[in-house]
Amino acid sequence: MDKPSLPSGTRDFAPAVMARRRYITGTIERIYRLHGFAQLETPAMENLSVLLGKYGDEGDKLVFRILNSGDFLSDVPEAQRANPEAKTLLPHVAAKGLRYDLTVPFARFVAMNRHQLQFPFRRYQIQPVWRADRPQKGRYREFWQCDADVIGTRSLLAEADLLLIMHEAFTALGLSDYRIRVSNRLILEAIAEHAGRPELFRAMVVAIDKWDKIGAEGVKRELGLAGFSEEQTLSVLNCMQQQALNPDSLDALAQLLAAYPKAQQGLDALRTVLASGIKANLVLDTTLARGLDYYTGCIFEAEIPNSGFGSVASGGRYDDLTGVFGVKDLSGVGISFGIDRLYDVLETRAAFPAGLDISTELLLCPMDESCMSTCFQMALELRRLGVSAEVYPDAAKLRKQLDHANQRNIPYAVIVGSEEMNSGIFPLKHLSQGSQEMLSLQDLFSRFRS
Amino acid sequence: MDKPSLPSGTRDFAPAVMARRRYITGTIERIYRLHGFAQLETPAMENLSVLLGKYGDEGDKLVFRILNSGDFLSDVPEAQRANPEAKTLLPHVAAKGLRYDLTVPFARFVAMNRHQLQFPFRRYQIQPVWRADRPQKGRYREFWQCDADVIGTRSLLAEADLLLIMHEAFTALGLSDYRIRVSNRLILEAIAEHAGRPELFRAMVVAIDKWDKIGAEGVKRELGLAGFSEEQTLSVLNCMQQQALNPDSLDALAQLLAAYPKAQQGLDALRTVLASGIKANLVLDTTLARGLDYYTGCIFEAEIPNSGFGSVASGGRYDDLTGVFGVKDLSGVGISFGIDRLYDVLETRAAFPAGLDISTELLLCPMDESCMSTCFQMALELRRLGVSAEVYPDAAKLRKQLDHANQRNIPYAVIVGSEEMNSGIFPLKHLSQGSQEMLSLQDLFSRFRS
Repeated sequence: MDKPSLPSGTRDFAPAVMARRRYITGTIERIYRLHGFAQLETPAMENLSVLLGKYGDEGDKLVFRILNSGDFLSDVPEAQRANPEAKTLLPHVAAKGLRYDLTVPFARFVAMNRHQLQFPFRRYQIQPVWRADRPQKGRYREFWQCDADVIGTRSLLAEADLLLIMHEAFTALGLSDYRIRVSNRLILEAIAEHAGRPELFRAMVVAIDKWDKIGAEGVKRELGLAGFSEEQTLSVLNCMQQQALNPDSLDALAQLLAAYPKAQQGLDALRTVLASGIKANLVLDTTLARGLDYYTGCIFEAEIPNSGFGSVASGGRYDDLTGVFGVKDLSGVGISFGIDRLYDVLETRAAFPAGLDISTELLLCPMDESCMSTCFQMALELRRLGVSAEVYPDAAKLRKQLDHANQRNIPYAVIVGSEEMNSGIFPLKHLSQGSQEMLSLQDLFSRFRS
Repeated sequence: MDKPSLPSGTRDFAPAVMARRRYITGTIERIYRLHGFAQLETPAMENLSVLLGKYGDEGDKLVFRILNSGDFLSDVPEAQRANPEAKTLLPHVAAKGLRYDLTVPFARFVAMNRHQLQFPFRRYQIQPVWRADRPQKGRYREFWQCDADVIGTRSLLAEADLLLIMHEAFTALGLSDYRIRVSNRLILEAIAEHAGRPELFRAMVVAIDKWDKIGAEGVKRELGLAGFSEEQTLSVLNCMQQQALNPDSLDALAQLLAAYPKAQQGLDALRTVLASGIKANLVLDTTLARGLDYYTGCIFEAEIPNSGFGSVASGGRYDDLTGVFGVKDLSGVGISFGIDRLYDVLETRAAFPAGLDISTELLLCPMDESCMSTCFQMALELRRLGVSAEVYPDAAKLRKQLDHANQRNIPYAVIVGSEEMNSGIFPLKHLSQGSQEMLSLQDLFSRFRS
């Protein structure tokens, strides 16, 4: 028999890792909820008619497809059976695929339920997604997204609220040196106009989007290849700036792009966000492009400087999330945290709180079979006090029981033998400190009441 | 464009439903954790070599298979290409499948990580599973399992602990009229011996397993068809009993099956469970068979009488969970709650606590744009107090804002206009009661501090 294995690009989350992941998702979820976001979950499978055509040709190829049940060839036209090819067979043998992100299923949900929903609708969603990408360090075929969106309002207060959530989440996770780069797609449109090549807007975005990887010189080269003249390229590069977001930096950019109403509109949006009074480490960054996403207004991307990792959260405003499903004019704004990246950052910094991997706080150690039911009763009372407690299931040697507790990082053990039951005084061992106290049952319980 | 839809047998969980599901899973998870169970999560996809052959031929057919990426025909032998058939193609076009239950992935995890784990290992796992079953009322293609297992000990204290967890979970969910039917597979083996047909043990289990559906008469007929003589059938039926589990009922059954050591062994196991002193509504029920599962010792099945629904939780001891993955002699015992069934029971009884669907407790209502940043500050302070608070994102008419709050079941609203900001006194509306208080900021905050 072969040794069992995991599909490449997937992972088990053993208890210690799971506890750390929950620390991250639990922190973000608590903040989402405090901001009034309600939880949605959608199925792992979606019809391919929902998924395909939303992520570009490359994305479509990365959707995991689920083979139709039973005779999966029954829908294949006779002509194609004789000389089957994967490409022509594909549309006939699979009608469902695995969720590729949380945004398209959310849009599908909103389109299907728009008459039941109250807008603005604030939803969060924390679920895995699957992509048939080539697995590599830090890139998995199953990974988690952690999204919040406000849909059905054009108010820029929604942007402010989401930026505040990012601030609160990073602060709560001990990453208060985070910075959020913000911009607005309208500013980029104005920059293309300013360079005299509005028709090359998309090519310009693709080039600028590589700024972090290839730098100014690389972007310059790419713009040239895309058709920008040297002068036009310089005009674009002249608008590329990264500085603290404040009224002054907004004014300076407004002056540079004074001739372009779109720039003023984009900058006004950022002014309104600032006027909400939120405190966050915001950087006005015109090199931020967010690829060819569906974003149409403000865009954000958060990173932890000097962490060696890229973006840990991102988001922006989209004007037409649900149009593709026949529901027009629903504007929204959303953010997404990258759980795996945040995990890596916290791990690298050794910034996870201590004690996350403690699943049992106290082990009751029965010295013989006759002590079992007393152990059970004591465990019952401890759990009532909120202490996670378990009874070692065999009356094994004390050494063995304490070794087990130590190996599992259980901080406390109570020894329960016939002697202790007679005297009513029980040894409470502090395993991490190697110390011991002798306590009556009363004292033991009040010890853990606090 | 077609209207978007969901794959049949799958569901969206909109916020109100999601809140109720979390009430159930959260309650059970809290109890699992208090008993020292640590969380495991495994990938949605498993290699088919892990999944197939574990659930019987019927089960294998119900595993959702994931089409290999890229040219999925590349592994198909030339000979089969000419005249492709689903059956012969199947092993070549899909190497992965979706998780069918949580037990096999758990066994695979234990086999792969046995050298890192401390035994007894107590893990819980709450994740969806997928089956290509025909969808019908109460049966879905994506549904959640909620398992806890103790592996690596033969101690019957583990059984007692899991039965106690069932008791605590049902009690916490307000279902204290639950009952747990318990038995032991060894008792069933003895009953087959007693009838003189030990070689028909499996056929007898299949027949008895239908007891709830077809009754004593039906089982009698099935036993006859299976080869039991009339006398042998009566001997089996004579052993079928349902009565409160206590020393007396155990003694009575022990007497009836006095000649069979296996029966004594099975009954002794139940005696030991009872001796732990756990309090739970336990019924000794020899009609309980748990199908042809891998169970080898104690078995349990819980139900809510008169609820109109079947089993809401079940479990038992297995002697060889990981043998199929090459790791012998790991005995364990596990339970599983049926989240969907529990949901239906609580819904039918209107037993969900009130207020579960409140995602926002307080809405701040800005009367004009100049009040926005004050609203933001107030929301910040309220959230610090643990109140989920949001700011209505537009300075819309008060009526519109309050309607929105009412439609979303938001219980409180605070009106923030320039008048209120000048006077420092804010109206707090109790929307469910239709009443209103005038409060200073200080008083407003201390109102929610409790």
